[in-house]
Formats: sequence, structure tokens, C-alpha cells
Amino acid sequence: MAVTDRPLALGFPRIGVVGGGQLARMMAAPAGALGIGLRVLANSMDEAAAQLIPDVVLGSPDDAVALRELAQGCEVITFDHEHVPPAVLQELTDAGIVLRPSASALAHVHDKITMRRALDAAGVPGPRWAVVADEAEVLAFADRVGWPVVLKTSRGGYDGKGVWVIREPALLAAVLAQPLPEGAAWLAEECVAFTQELAAQVVRSPSGQAVAYPIVRTVQTDGICTEVISPAPDLSAAHAIAAQELALHLAGELGVVGMLAVELFDTPDGVLVNELAMRPHNSGHWSIDGAVTSQFENHLRAVLDLPLGSPAATSRWSVMVNVLGGDYPDLYRAYLHCMARDPGLKIHVYGKDVRPGRKVGHVTVCGDDLPDLLRRAHHAADYLTGTITE
Amino acid sequence: MAVTDRPLALGFPRIGVVGGGQLARMMAAPAGALGIGLRVLANSMDEAAAQLIPDVVLGSPDDAVALRELAQGCEVITFDHEHVPPAVLQELTDAGIVLRPSASALAHVHDKITMRRALDAAGVPGPRWAVVADEAEVLAFADRVGWPVVLKTSRGGYDGKGVWVIREPALLAAVLAQPLPEGAAWLAEECVAFTQELAAQVVRSPSGQAVAYPIVRTVQTDGICTEVISPAPDLSAAHAIAAQELALHLAGELGVVGMLAVELFDTPDGVLVNELAMRPHNSGHWSIDGAVTSQFENHLRAVLDLPLGSPAATSRWSVMVNVLGGDYPDLYRAYLHCMARDPGLKIHVYGKDVRPGRKVGHVTVCGDDLPDLLRRAHHAADYLTGTITE
Repeated sequence: MAVTDRPLALGFPRIGVVGGGQLARMMAAPAGALGIGLRVLANSMDEAAAQLIPDVVLGSPDDAVALRELAQGCEVITFDHEHVPPAVLQELTDAGIVLRPSASALAHVHDKITMRRALDAAGVPGPRWAVVADEAEVLAFADRVGWPVVLKTSRGGYDGKGVWVIREPALLAAVLAQPLPEGAAWLAEECVAFTQELAAQVVRSPSGQAVAYPIVRTVQTDGICTEVISPAPDLSAAHAIAAQELALHLAGELGVVGMLAVELFDTPDGVLVNELAMRPHNSGHWSIDGAVTSQFENHLRAVLDLPLGSPAATSRWSVMVNVLGGDYPDLYRAYLHCMARDPGLKIHVYGKDVRPGRKVGHVTVCGDDLPDLLRRAHHAADYLTGTITE
Repeated sequence: MAVTDRPLALGFPRIGVVGGGQLARMMAAPAGALGIGLRVLANSMDEAAAQLIPDVVLGSPDDAVALRELAQGCEVITFDHEHVPPAVLQELTDAGIVLRPSASALAHVHDKITMRRALDAAGVPGPRWAVVADEAEVLAFADRVGWPVVLKTSRGGYDGKGVWVIREPALLAAVLAQPLPEGAAWLAEECVAFTQELAAQVVRSPSGQAVAYPIVRTVQTDGICTEVISPAPDLSAAHAIAAQELALHLAGELGVVGMLAVELFDTPDGVLVNELAMRPHNSGHWSIDGAVTSQFENHLRAVLDLPLGSPAATSRWSVMVNVLGGDYPDLYRAYLHCMARDPGLKIHVYGKDVRPGRKVGHVTVCGDDLPDLLRRAHHAADYLTGTITE
């Protein structure tokens, strides 16, 4: 455990961030510009955010003692991930610590069944779903919605983990035989025939002000977001507005404070909610370089109940491509090539050592020519990953 | 003395920055994005950059021992200010420490007489000047160039300090009676009848790559830069190109590595060099929000000999206005008004407690309507300063 407090100018607040990953890391730049102090709870000093934020509390996100230490001298606590157990969130709330988003809002991202019930109650469209206990119940569900069926653990999944697309009954038993995370149940969902995947991002403050970012198109590879285009091309104005309204409505209904990301399926009949995240999200990284106010700045402003900044795009198109760890460990040397080839490229690395499949950074390019931006962003990401060498 | 090292990802370098002011502070955001480590030499943990950069060496910029400690484990040393004595720079160079810019380049900003001689040798136009020892020599210079005459101490001046505009001979004696900083002499310069003040910013890498930012218009109030418009309005294309070429030429001639700011007088006959700075500069703060690559990012890229980023503007106009400390000490409370009034406003504060006349932050707005941008930026700065209260 180690805290290194740094002074702050008179009257400026400090925010405690649970988690030392890249999302906390990317909060550091807007916090610095706004003069706001950050303190992070990290598992080790190697973590992305602990490398560049002076005030670090070392500890686990399920340890209430560490979380109380994080909260000391912080005006408010916010989150880089969803791994704080609900009981611990409740204990902190009872102790008078201000959590934004609140424990009750976070319940919806902690458990996907809670989320599905809340979405139905809010009248928000999603895929058909059912809580299932065994093979027979999945088969009954499939009889109703058709194959394939998506099986999810209601808790503990992320980046494609805890999700299976089941294409035939014979494969069911092996999936259901796996141990469930503590407190989790099996959730079956209709496999939606979508035309594209979208994300709606909105930010909401405790006083109820909310603004919506442009709707983006996301591409997932093996369950991990790999490409984002802002705004989503080939999206009807009606669906774009519906998606923004849906996300603003949900933020209010669920009492979200800070950023809310709503992952959506676009279908000919309208948009359906896939997943939620109540924090800055991979689908909004483009906003650092492509919007007047980034998702990270607006998240900080929201949790402090400061007026929100404009989410307007500063370019016609922004393309963000994730850099996943590959076989090539020396990201820094790959810089020279990428920077020399493309002076307009914005590279963001997270300070993580390279491991295969790990999100180690992202690149963004902004401009008018979408096919050109896509080519440039993918070339850079592929080169940084080591997939290509020239 | 205190160093708190943080880990860096494999292969990533660390830069040592002499000085803990706002320029070092604003390097932190691009360093984080690029995964580059920073360590600052600061006088105290209260300083702007020491508040948010983990690795701090406490010490004075004229203390060679502190500077050597700063340099340990850093690939290169760069600067937030010009206060390292030339003898100390030479000692570090002799010890094999890489300074960027180098001691020989920095000699031109340490002493304005050295600078004037180098500008003349490079064939770069400036006001007429002379080294003067006493009243009689100033009067002889004034006979040649006319009144008023500008008197400067060759060393130790900044933000209007060490500069006097002498309008009549009777006032000379009082100025010349003042003690000179160590090693300094009096420099007399022609008082140029300029139409506007400009700044040219270029960045150059050790391998000789260099790029030029758009020429900006600067407004000085009591010798402190208070407003910058990018690009400079009412500037002929010929003068803009001449100013960029002049700065690129100078960067090469003087062997500058990193950012070079050339403060210029615009006159009907062409541009004349007023001052130089070999570091990120107040006239380039707009680039954080208004350019593809900020001056801070390009400075870091240059001193590491990484390929340089595009200096292109992302909006038609950017307006930056400095926030000077006023009577109102609570900057944070003033946020609410400014943010609520203008969601497009970018506020940057430096973590400094407010003292009258001190640069405590700046605001930037970008867009198409210059009169509107000027109104918005000045309103916000005046409100943050406490000059206006609604």
C-alpha cells in the first residue's frame, strides 16, 4: 500500500479511480488540463495508470479497506472497471462515500440479468432473452427464438469472455458444464441478425444534464472491439437519433452518472441493446482526437457535477483501431515507421508490456476521406502489432 | 531531493525536463499517450509539473548535482525554461549527458547579444541594435535610429522583465543605474513601428527534419502574451511564408532541436525578429486543441529523434487567451459559470495558486467565426481572472 499525495491548487477537487488500467490512464490528460487531482487504486505500480499518476493506492478492488483509503481526501470515487463486488459498493455507500456511478446504477452492469430486466422495464428494445438453468430450458428457449442461441454467464464476462454462440444442441452440454462465477446464472439470448454493430455514448451529471456523442460503428473480432468509425457510416438518420434517444433515456432511467456506453445491434427493424458499460469505453477513444470534449474529460466533469463539454466531432470522420499485442514486443521501435509514414496519425499506448491479444494501445486518424482513414489506421495498428513489417 | 521512479513498458525512453512549470506540465499529456516517461527537476512539489508527474527530482536548475540526478536513466534532457547557467550546461555536455537543445544552441537564448550577432550572421532581419555601456552610447544609438529606444539587459529577462522602452533622454539615467544580472550587458534596440506582433513556431529533430506551425498573431499586455490567434488574420501570404522560412532557416543555423519560437514584428517592409525561445512557448498553446500535433507532443518527438507530427490546424481559427491571476482566488468555482456558458471552451489550468499577474492558465476556442471566438475566449478568461463577474 502506498499513497503519494501531491498538492492541488486552492479549491480543486481530487477524484479517486478504482482500477489502474488504460481507462484511468487516459483520464490523466484531461484531469491535468482541468487542474483536477486523480488517485488510483491499482494492483501494482506496473499498471497502465499507476505509471503516470503520482497518487496510487495499492490494493484489490474487492478490498473495502483499500477502497476506503482511496476515498480519503477524494470528493468522489469513480471506476475504470466493474470488478468491485456489489456488497463492497454498498458498504462504501453506507459509510457516506460518494460513488459515481452509484451502487444501484452499477448493479445493472454487474449482472446481465438485472440489466435485461431493467431494459425491459424501461421499454428499451433488446434481443429476446431468458434465464436458463439446464439444457432443457435452453432447448425450449431455442424452440421459441430459433438457432443459434447466445449463452452468457450473467456475471464476470468481458471482452468476449463468458459468451458462447451455440449453433447446435449437441454443443450445449459442454458449455453448461463449465463452472459459473459466484452468484452468476446462465442467460440465453436470441442471436440477432444485425446489419452492423453500433455504440451510443452519452454522459450524464448528477444534476441531470446529459449529452450524446455521435453514434459510432464498432467492429468486434473474437469478442474484442477492434475498429470504431465515428460517425457510423451507412446509418439512417432515424436509427441514429433513435440510438441517441435510447441511450439518453437509459442513462436517466438507470440513474447513470458519468459516461454510459450502450452497445447496439442495428437491424432493419431498429436498434437493439446488446451490452452496457458505465464508464469511458473503447468505442469512445476516438473522441480524444476527434471531438471537442473527449469521453474522459466529460466523465470527470460529470462525476464532479461540472457542466458538460460539447461532444461534437471536430472532423468529418474519425477512425480508431485497437493495437492488440502480437509477436513483436518492441512497440517503441515500430513507432519510427508509423510516425514517418503518417504525420497525421495519433498513437496512444498504455504502457503495457506486449502479450498476445492484449489491448496495448490504439491509433486514431481524423479527416474527410473515410477509405483513406481506414487504410491508414489499420496499417499503423497492423505494423505496431507486428502483423505486417512494411 | 526525491525521485519516484515508475516502470515503463519495454523499450520506451524517459525524458528529463529541467523545470517544473506549466510547460513541463503540458508535456505530460502527450508523453502519456506516447508511453514516454517524464522526470522533472522542480524546486518544490508545489510546482505545476511536480503536481502530476510521478518522477520528481527536487533541486535548483543551477545545481549540477541535481541535474546529473535528473539525467540518470533518462535518454535525453530538455527544458521548461532557460535558467540553467551556460557553465553547468557545458559541464553536463562534457559528462556525456545529451541536452536537447544543446548548450551551444541555448547560448542564443541565454544572452540576447549572442542572439543578435547570430541573427545578423544568419542574414535574418531584426531591429537595429547596439551594445551600450552608458548614457552617451545610448544617445549616440538614438541619434542613428531615432526615439524611442528599447533598452534590455542581455541576460535574465522574461515576460517583459528586463525590458524598458525609453521615450526621452531624461529617463535613461534611472534605467542604466539599475544593477545588471551577472554577466549581462545593456543592449539597445530600435523601437520598431510594427503593424502587429507575430510568432513563428517550428520544430526540428537532430536528424534535421523540421516542420512549421501556422504563423500566429500575438498580443502582449505589459510584456506578457495575453492573446494568440492562429493563423494570424490580416497577414499577407508573402509575409506568412517569409516568417515560416525565416524560422526554419534559423532553427537549422542555430542547431535547435525541439520547438523554436520566433517572436516577430510585422512591418510594411517585412518581418523582423524580436525574441527567440527554444522550447514550447505560450504562442503555441492553441496547438493542444487546434492542431493535429501539439507543440508539446512535437517537442517530445523531436528531442527523441522520432519523426515529427503534422502541425496542421484542425479548425479554421483557434483563439488562445491567457488567464492571469487576479483578485479572485477560487478558479475552480469560476469553472461552473464558464463551462455552463460555453460547452466548446477548452480550459487549461496550471495548478498554481492565484497571485496577481501570474499566468495561472489559458483558454482556447476553435471554430469558423473569429469575432465570436475572440468574444468567447476573452469572456472566459476575464471571468476566470475575476475581472468580470457575469
